[in-house]
Amino acid sequence: MPAPGENLRINGDRLWDSLMEMARIGPGVAGGNNRQTLTDADGEGRHLFKRWCEAAGLTLGVDKMGTMFARREGTDPKALPVYVGSHLDTQPTGGKFDGVLGVLGGLEVVRTLNDLGIKTRHPIVVTNWTNEEGTRFAPAMLASGVFAGVHEQDWAYDRKDREGKRFGDELERIGWKGGEPVGARKMKAFFELHIEQGPILEDEGIDIGVVTHGQGLKWLQVTITGKESHTGSTPMPKRRNAGLGLARITELVHEVAMDYQPDAVGAIGHIEVFPNSRNIIAGKVICTIDIRSPNKAVLDEMDRRIRAGIAGIVEALAITAEIEQVGHFDPVTFDEGCVKAVRDAAERLGYSHRNIVSGAGHDACWINRVAPTAMVMCPCVDGLSHNEAEDISKEWATAGADVLFHAVVETAEIVA
Amino acid sequence: MPAPGENLRINGDRLWDSLMEMARIGPGVAGGNNRQTLTDADGEGRHLFKRWCEAAGLTLGVDKMGTMFARREGTDPKALPVYVGSHLDTQPTGGKFDGVLGVLGGLEVVRTLNDLGIKTRHPIVVTNWTNEEGTRFAPAMLASGVFAGVHEQDWAYDRKDREGKRFGDELERIGWKGGEPVGARKMKAFFELHIEQGPILEDEGIDIGVVTHGQGLKWLQVTITGKESHTGSTPMPKRRNAGLGLARITELVHEVAMDYQPDAVGAIGHIEVFPNSRNIIAGKVICTIDIRSPNKAVLDEMDRRIRAGIAGIVEALAITAEIEQVGHFDPVTFDEGCVKAVRDAAERLGYSHRNIVSGAGHDACWINRVAPTAMVMCPCVDGLSHNEAEDISKEWATAGADVLFHAVVETAEIVA
Repeated sequence: MPAPGENLRINGDRLWDSLMEMARIGPGVAGGNNRQTLTDADGEGRHLFKRWCEAAGLTLGVDKMGTMFARREGTDPKALPVYVGSHLDTQPTGGKFDGVLGVLGGLEVVRTLNDLGIKTRHPIVVTNWTNEEGTRFAPAMLASGVFAGVHEQDWAYDRKDREGKRFGDELERIGWKGGEPVGARKMKAFFELHIEQGPILEDEGIDIGVVTHGQGLKWLQVTITGKESHTGSTPMPKRRNAGLGLARITELVHEVAMDYQPDAVGAIGHIEVFPNSRNIIAGKVICTIDIRSPNKAVLDEMDRRIRAGIAGIVEALAITAEIEQVGHFDPVTFDEGCVKAVRDAAERLGYSHRNIVSGAGHDACWINRVAPTAMVMCPCVDGLSHNEAEDISKEWATAGADVLFHAVVETAEIVA
Repeated sequence: MPAPGENLRINGDRLWDSLMEMARIGPGVAGGNNRQTLTDADGEGRHLFKRWCEAAGLTLGVDKMGTMFARREGTDPKALPVYVGSHLDTQPTGGKFDGVLGVLGGLEVVRTLNDLGIKTRHPIVVTNWTNEEGTRFAPAMLASGVFAGVHEQDWAYDRKDREGKRFGDELERIGWKGGEPVGARKMKAFFELHIEQGPILEDEGIDIGVVTHGQGLKWLQVTITGKESHTGSTPMPKRRNAGLGLARITELVHEVAMDYQPDAVGAIGHIEVFPNSRNIIAGKVICTIDIRSPNKAVLDEMDRRIRAGIAGIVEALAITAEIEQVGHFDPVTFDEGCVKAVRDAAERLGYSHRNIVSGAGHDACWINRVAPTAMVMCPCVDGLSHNEAEDISKEWATAGADVLFHAVVETAEIVA
């Protein structure tokens, strides 16, 4: 029987202690972390992770994007490794768990195997992907994107931060540019444990999110042009009110998203009004529509309906709208077998669980293009993330890592 | 017969030449004017006006707010004067006609009487009210407000510009603080000619607006509080979207205004969104509702319906709204007799005319509190004002001044 028994559990205290120790590196100003990619703090975090991996008997490889691969050997020299991990870099005002839980949860998987003297047929490789956050060097998920063939390595090297420093130069400066070609590794599977970054699991009191899909996304930037005019002396029928256009487009986006529940979402969070004066009717509004769905056909249909709706709205108001697509990811459907391994693990361990869609992007979304992939989610307090106040409980972390452990080890096959 | 004959007309070329000569003082950067109140340019404009008044045989008085009163004597020493005028100050990027047309139109009235050797029983006083625009020293219509008892003179003196300079000090500096107590003058009537600053007359091809009312106004600043959350990972039912609240309040204001046509108006021109990010649902929106009606009962009812509607909107969205009234003017009903004099004048002269409501505030709105008052409006190109591109035709100016002439002179009573 390749799956571990239900009595096999990771060490939640050890995992928590490691999370807290990593959080001492690159402290934030309000209890969280500022360990942005390729800073000295990122380098220090990498060294701590390396020491832990070596202490656990793992062999470290580093690729040309700086991604760290710590390998525990399997018994079958020909078997493809099972990968597990996430990222150690944080937002400038980030939390202690976003990304870190997935890397140190992976480390806890191999520490537990060592404790129990369990061997697996397939090697297990704990991974720290470089620059998942993308705040210092846009875009997000940069190294996993190069690994999956989404971006060119040279293009990634040329990404610049606000001070004009190149990604490639900074990677070299902190001493983590490895020699290994990016994307050369073949994987049996990849598993990523992550905090939800949303409110569903906590609200519903559920331990584990079995991530079946990643949301596809479109960002439509709309420039609404009306006519600037005096709020007092312009009669209602003579107005060409870009602000009223904004209101109707906001409602349209909401209605369209509501038609594709439970998974689709839609909103406008970015709004600029010109001239933005109390007594002048807006002559121009620029806003960005954010729509997401785990289903590509639904996402495309939402896009089509919103464009058609906008055409009707602006015609009725004698205004105009220009629409520019400024962002786009296709939805992700995670691997059926890997998702089943996660669900079976939660079931076997007696944790409550539900299927969930990842609203945010993760390294797993890119790796899913080149290897069977799945994600495990655990709750986070108040859905809060990308914020120093981000928080989870030790119990949530333990449950998530237990499920990760069972899914990874079942996939890597215990050798009796 | 006290009314002048229909063949009596002002000199449109002379009026236009004076408008163009005044526009040379305090030129703007784009063909308009920057002759803000109590600047050196304002002082220079006042001196030019003073020379013209003296050349026309008028006697100048100046009150403690710097308002200029240029008097042409009547034949009856006991008869109250008829006042006519507007303001010579402009917006920082203002036009050549807003205000100036009313002052120089008044001057043209007495110049024409002089040309024709016509005497009137009542004196006629051409007036230049200080600081109508209120851009440098808020609020607008400051001197006429003190004149009408709306503001205290000392409070007005303490108004400061952006550099911290006091109104009272600047008035003294440019040498136009007169000795006359403000508001001491009694008026038989006050007439103000002004450009419409809206699109109605031009759109309808009408020469003259007979201003029956001034819009009452309320500014309601609304702080909408929802919950900042991720656009990707927050399901639709769990959102507390302040941006959606803004949309529904915008639509509500529009609907309420549409229920009181043709005169009521309503819009939101000022919007601030927090944190204003593409992938974050707005946690807070601050906006200002501008509603206006010439009918106080309607304005109050609009206010009541909007407050009730907002309560329902925020409850449905699980958000909150705080409403603060940050501006308010009661509607103005101009004097029936003076309005009739304007309408009769347009009729007698063969100009097309219609009743109109003044959407913006004017000195006449305050003076109406202490004297029988009416306004004459002429079209302006594209409804544009408070803009250097503000424009009118010589024909429009001539028609407006002709009507002003007839209304003033009929009220002042020609002496046979």
